[in-house]
Amino acid sequence: MKFRSLLAFGFLSIGLSTTLQAEEFSQQQLEHVKQVREAASQSNLSWQLLESLTTEVGPRLPGTENDKKAVAWAKAQFEQLGFDKVWLEEATFPEWRRYHESAKILVPSEQPLHLTALGNSVSTPKDGLSGEIVLFETLDELIAAPNNSLAGKIAFINYRMNRDIDGNGYGPAVKARSSGAVEAAKKGAIAYMMRSVSTSHHRFAHTGGSHYQTGITKIPATAVANPDADQLARLVSAGHNVKVSLNIQTENLGEGTSYNVIGEFTGTTFPDQYVLIGGHLDSWDLGTGALDDGAGVALTMAAAKHIADVKRPKRSVRVVLFAAEELGLWGAKAYFKKHQAELDRIVAASESDFGADVVYAFESNVNAASLPVVRAIAKQLAPLGVTYIGKNGAHGGPDLIPFKNATSAPIFALHQDGTDYFDYHHTADDTLDKVDPAKLKQNTAAYAVFALMAADAKTKISGK
Amino acid sequence: MKFRSLLAFGFLSIGLSTTLQAEEFSQQQLEHVKQVREAASQSNLSWQLLESLTTEVGPRLPGTENDKKAVAWAKAQFEQLGFDKVWLEEATFPEWRRYHESAKILVPSEQPLHLTALGNSVSTPKDGLSGEIVLFETLDELIAAPNNSLAGKIAFINYRMNRDIDGNGYGPAVKARSSGAVEAAKKGAIAYMMRSVSTSHHRFAHTGGSHYQTGITKIPATAVANPDADQLARLVSAGHNVKVSLNIQTENLGEGTSYNVIGEFTGTTFPDQYVLIGGHLDSWDLGTGALDDGAGVALTMAAAKHIADVKRPKRSVRVVLFAAEELGLWGAKAYFKKHQAELDRIVAASESDFGADVVYAFESNVNAASLPVVRAIAKQLAPLGVTYIGKNGAHGGPDLIPFKNATSAPIFALHQDGTDYFDYHHTADDTLDKVDPAKLKQNTAAYAVFALMAADAKTKISGK
Repeated sequence: MKFRSLLAFGFLSIGLSTTLQAEEFSQQQLEHVKQVREAASQSNLSWQLLESLTTEVGPRLPGTENDKKAVAWAKAQFEQLGFDKVWLEEATFPEWRRYHESAKILVPSEQPLHLTALGNSVSTPKDGLSGEIVLFETLDELIAAPNNSLAGKIAFINYRMNRDIDGNGYGPAVKARSSGAVEAAKKGAIAYMMRSVSTSHHRFAHTGGSHYQTGITKIPATAVANPDADQLARLVSAGHNVKVSLNIQTENLGEGTSYNVIGEFTGTTFPDQYVLIGGHLDSWDLGTGALDDGAGVALTMAAAKHIADVKRPKRSVRVVLFAAEELGLWGAKAYFKKHQAELDRIVAASESDFGADVVYAFESNVNAASLPVVRAIAKQLAPLGVTYIGKNGAHGGPDLIPFKNATSAPIFALHQDGTDYFDYHHTADDTLDKVDPAKLKQNTAAYAVFALMAADAKTKISGK
Repeated sequence: MKFRSLLAFGFLSIGLSTTLQAEEFSQQQLEHVKQVREAASQSNLSWQLLESLTTEVGPRLPGTENDKKAVAWAKAQFEQLGFDKVWLEEATFPEWRRYHESAKILVPSEQPLHLTALGNSVSTPKDGLSGEIVLFETLDELIAAPNNSLAGKIAFINYRMNRDIDGNGYGPAVKARSSGAVEAAKKGAIAYMMRSVSTSHHRFAHTGGSHYQTGITKIPATAVANPDADQLARLVSAGHNVKVSLNIQTENLGEGTSYNVIGEFTGTTFPDQYVLIGGHLDSWDLGTGALDDGAGVALTMAAAKHIADVKRPKRSVRVVLFAAEELGLWGAKAYFKKHQAELDRIVAASESDFGADVVYAFESNVNAASLPVVRAIAKQLAPLGVTYIGKNGAHGGPDLIPFKNATSAPIFALHQDGTDYFDYHHTADDTLDKVDPAKLKQNTAAYAVFALMAADAKTKISGK
């Protein structure tokens, strides 16, 4: 409903916008923008790519056979779509596997727990372990617990993530995922269990990255589904000494290798300058990585193709499918390292990695001199229901963090509605059916308009 | 929204209704009805019972330790609530256990399958089995397959259940669950796999009863989650020869014993006559049986208590918590057998076993001479948003099937909105958080009004 009314508003404003942008874009260029926007809004290409990746490859944990298949799949798709250049760039990362996970409540009555190992977690002993849980509301409460107070016990943090359109609940919640096991081990705990970083009320445990600290005992790090966290909390609240058992079997395999897969359509006037769009090709092993981040991969590949179907803009359009994002942005780090001497070639960068709900807002992080071009792009996104946020403080997606941190690269955000994203994020339930084909088209069109205009503007966009 | 407007409508009509029912119920009796309705509409009792059963006992597969705990729990609760009589009646059933289940797609790429054994299924070999799947749209298509055409293969029926308020999609879908494994074995299949009997798009496999046939090889009988069924269907449709492996370990333990747990408030004038309400105490092992059927148990126990808090009606109010429903109505069969000589003592019977969404309609299946009483009850249900269905053709819940089939017992249905019921039914996701406390109160009030009035009417309600 919201999407439709925003669309209607957008269509009304387009007549006005074309006049105001005459300086940066000719009428013919704006006509190309319109053609690309309309073609992308109607095409099934991004859906077909997403369906193929999530169905025929499926889960894509870095280093696995499926990860290799995904790399081959992406290269073949770029080539089949007629990208001018297609190549791989190596990235290494600490390889990790999940083999088994099971858990149950033992006392006061036996019942299964839906639990998953956090990425990087060590195994339990082969036959599992068991112990009483000690409930904490927050990571801070655990940190404040007396030393050795958790000896022989299992620490359980029951922190509840907030739901919001921009996912602002994620940051506060994810602290307990990153370092909960370290803090629990410091207090003597034999294992760590947390309420999932999740807004869902379904019985899926959410995995995600976690880390250990040198000198602190590595204990198994796990998350339980929210209904299971509720169950534990109710049992504790009813006065029971709740005993659970868990068995997770994982493996750290040392350094693994994968590849950023890159496709580029070459610019006509400034071929060395490029717009960077993309997503990450890897996924967690539980689901099929449709929302995270098959959608970002598929829609940015398709967006570039829709541009090329109409024209080659002045500058190149490069689609980067990053490797091993889930295990710690390893593809992004490799890309940054390899290309850091030539970052001024990037005229605009945006990664799509927040699901596949509608793009509702557009925001830049650029030199103030480039804002007229930004506003001209925003006018052409309006027909898609995308609002312009003029704060010029965008982040551009996780794989652009190295760029954002270290350089003055011009970064853009096409903000997606993330209200429901953390219902599915990092779970077995992140599957193709969670993507709405109409919304995926809108995303594709937004990326196509953005990338075309950033690549085709008279003035080169520059960073802060 | 609907519930609120119906409620508003109901409150408007109550003034009118009280006058019309003067013959069957005195003004004082109607005042008692109002008191009971209001108390039940506001009380947390049914929620407290449901929370306690699903949290402190949890899953309740017949014959398990938890089933025994549930029987003890129910008896203790009845006693604590002050029921005049509390007793157990034995029921036997074929005991079955699920120990392990796992499955994956092997070809074209390895990915996990979310699968569950159907109740009564035999095990695979200890190391599992694997084979190519052959997809059928319906059970009929499988039945029509040539003899021996599935030798060495795994039959997969992809029938999609319809969503509807009255659950009418369940019957057609459940045929493939009951007898799919038999039909697949007749064609030489080594295992049977079906799309879950489910309206959900979440990744939960739905279990449920299945059966074998003498003389036909018993093959493992399983269901996959709907997103997994979609994945298999897409792979088949893309032209792949899809190979899967599965490993389920189960056990048939022979005859087990459990108990119908019964509580009764004794009637003042005709103590031998009784209204029968209740649910089934057992549940499948995957979830905690909140919707199926903890809610039915809790709300009927609470309804009887709310009546007794105001008065003892002319006839008794009996709450029967049936045993081993999920494995084949074994508690119901035992109750029927034990009481069949005295079924004319039952003045009204209704089981709540369709989740915990609002009661939206009320329907009888009684002697036409009893319809004035039925209509008088319907008038008192209207303030709760309950519409009267005058067709006089109600079924009264699964555990009343023996009564419905064999006798002329007066049966009633308090129809619950089942639109979302089959999203959760027989899955791990059937947990307490799926129950809306406000809707549970409305259900409790509806049962309380119905049971009080059927027990307190001037004229005894009789069957057809």
